Amino acid sequence: MRIILASNSPRRKELLSQAGIEFEVISANIEEITDKEKPDEIVMDLSLQKAKAVAVNNPGQVVLAADTVVAFEGVVLGKPKDEADAINMLKLLSGKTHQVYTGVTLIDCSGATNTFCECTEVSMYDNSDDLIQKYVSTKEPMDKAGAYGIQGIGAVLVKEIKGDYNNVVGLPLAKVYREIIKLQVD
Amino acid sequence: MRIILASNSPRRKELLSQAGIEFEVISANIEEITDKEKPDEIVMDLSLQKAKAVAVNNPGQVVLAADTVVAFEGVVLGKPKDEADAINMLKLLSGKTHQVYTGVTLIDCSGATNTFCECTEVSMYDNSDDLIQKYVSTKEPMDKAGAYGIQGIGAVLVKEIKGDYNNVVGLPLAKVYREIIKLQVD
Repeated sequence: MRIILASNSPRRKELLSQAGIEFEVISANIEEITDKEKPDEIVMDLSLQKAKAVAVNNPGQVVLAADTVVAFEGVVLGKPKDEADAINMLKLLSGKTHQVYTGVTLIDCSGATNTFCECTEVSMYDNSDDLIQKYVSTKEPMDKAGAYGIQGIGAVLVKEIKGDYNNVVGLPLAKVYREIIKLQVD
Repeated sequence: MRIILASNSPRRKELLSQAGIEFEVISANIEEITDKEKPDEIVMDLSLQKAKAVAVNNPGQVVLAADTVVAFEGVVLGKPKDEADAINMLKLLSGKTHQVYTGVTLIDCSGATNTFCECTEVSMYDNSDDLIQKYVSTKEPMDKAGAYGIQGIGAVLVKEIKGDYNNVVGLPLAKVYREIIKLQVD
């Protein structure tokens, strides 16, 4: 079975490929607007909007969409506006535990939707100002929610995680794979 | 600072590159024999042996060596002997939590050694016989301790981890980076 990935994220493409899932990309060009406020509700709602936007033009196909946010003490952190903002975010997260939420929506061939959310806890080392400055100067944080990429140099900032690692990268791969398998069996 | 990686593991090379650490590879051709019995002691001893074997021929250089094992209920699991053995290991780990230990030794320019161990808990889904069979047929398990690769298709078998993800891949990258930084400062 081939699926449509409603996302242009290179990291999500890599993850599906890692699991041997065949897919084509049709990205959902939606404005990411939601009236939800809690991180888990936000990502589920946005993944549903993305999946629906693609499914409407591709009836009878399996569509997968996802949305990931970083949350600290219940507040969602977006991508940093500039280097100073990245430094502030990384200082805020330093020595603390935050959450990464990915919402996923799968729409099957019949049009039935399955939306779920996976949360992974990420505990940062007590990172020195020097290390944070050095990391920000690599520019890696600039396009990342929460101002770090765990799959890049940002790994050196992270003490431990609890949950699915790939969920932090952008897709809870194990759960997605297992839900896709179910579609094949049904 | 450039370091010598005393390991030919492609995964360890990738991890050092990910963190932007420059290195050259001089692999330690030792027989992996230890009189230790506990997983953490085994990996620390073997990493020390590997680092020393390379350092003796490269005085004044920084040498990094590592050894990784998978342990379930205190018993070390090696690489599977054949596909049947891989299936047995994966059934043993299914639905349970096991430990991945990586021992690391750093020998600095002065010859001082720093040996430590990092443990990550890995909880497997209750994987069906069908899924295990399908995974083993990819051959991915055959050269992996514990018969799975978390950085490959094996990711779909894993429910969650607690600790450093890269430690499961073969090197506790964050801690290694932070210890190397200390060498530079001293």
